[in-house]
Amino acid sequence: MTGNPDLLAELVEALRCLPGVGAKSAQRMAFHLLERDREGGARLSRVLGDAMQRIGHCKACRNFSERDECAICANASRDASLLCVVETPADLLAIEQATGYRGRYFVLMGRLSPLDGMGPQELGAGLLQQRLASGEIAEMVIATNPTVEGEATAHWLGQLARAAGVRATRLAHGVPLGGELEYVDRGTLAHAFGTRLTME
Amino acid sequence: MTGNPDLLAELVEALRCLPGVGAKSAQRMAFHLLERDREGGARLSRVLGDAMQRIGHCKACRNFSERDECAICANASRDASLLCVVETPADLLAIEQATGYRGRYFVLMGRLSPLDGMGPQELGAGLLQQRLASGEIAEMVIATNPTVEGEATAHWLGQLARAAGVRATRLAHGVPLGGELEYVDRGTLAHAFGTRLTME
Repeated sequence: MTGNPDLLAELVEALRCLPGVGAKSAQRMAFHLLERDREGGARLSRVLGDAMQRIGHCKACRNFSERDECAICANASRDASLLCVVETPADLLAIEQATGYRGRYFVLMGRLSPLDGMGPQELGAGLLQQRLASGEIAEMVIATNPTVEGEATAHWLGQLARAAGVRATRLAHGVPLGGELEYVDRGTLAHAFGTRLTME
Repeated sequence: MTGNPDLLAELVEALRCLPGVGAKSAQRMAFHLLERDREGGARLSRVLGDAMQRIGHCKACRNFSERDECAICANASRDASLLCVVETPADLLAIEQATGYRGRYFVLMGRLSPLDGMGPQELGAGLLQQRLASGEIAEMVIATNPTVEGEATAHWLGQLARAAGVRATRLAHGVPLGGELEYVDRGTLAHAFGTRLTME
């Protein structure tokens, strides 16, 4: 692209490290920032550099945190007897935003997936067992995704809990609220039918 | 969002300066960079900061450039007697990539739009008139967008060319290649019919 000055071409290329951003979007982003929001671009550059360098993992729950201990783990008003295990920080945020859960979390930063080299070690099994063995935790809420790998991970987590004598619970599966039975997938419908509850 | 450490929240917020990036995408981007591509994130931070600071405008054509004169204007092998006027740097890139045009450009960085405060001054009228008056230019190719504002801009550009005694040409309008007449919009079809050419 002879029309592209070097630094601009480099910027377009660098923007492609963002997920879902191809050549066209990267170009649009670069032009947008240069034409209309240099301040925002400069701020993004600063914050991004800072974040890439300083954000590590909480030593207790493995969530992203710029401090040794994340805000949730450091919050003494949260119930330390409840531990919700999730796959990713995004899942944690979803639960925080949707539910009134006031316990603690443990973030696996992945799911059991031997083909991708994700085993118990990579998911922080040692740290999790340590926390289960501390005697502080009464219930472990398993909130892995309802996928094949998530289910395998949930099974493994259940075993860890049983070994430590901790009660394990799982998110309920079934028909989503606001949906129509006609459009619910067969697997979900069969599961919801099989685990139907008595009306109170 | 209690689950978000401050710096992470700041990063998500900063990413929203990118066009088309909302809260969810920004979160996905932040997690992606933190989990899988810290190096790419750090590089983007560097290049972005550099670009926001150093990329200015070419003194001859107003395109983005980190130098006083952009690569195209500085390229002596390009035909200085042809001047293609475009609205944006993206239009320039599109023409560079699609056509074999080997002349020079002038980038308006906008279009006539009094309501948005875009008048001749903002489009670099002075600089353009200076270049037209230099006597170097034999033909001005007007390549504004076929929109109402682009047409008004083209009309104004034509007047500038006439005043300077420079031949003005415009991109041909008509039925796009590979399209089907059935689906071409009425305005385009009427225009193409009205300006039909004799077959050679």
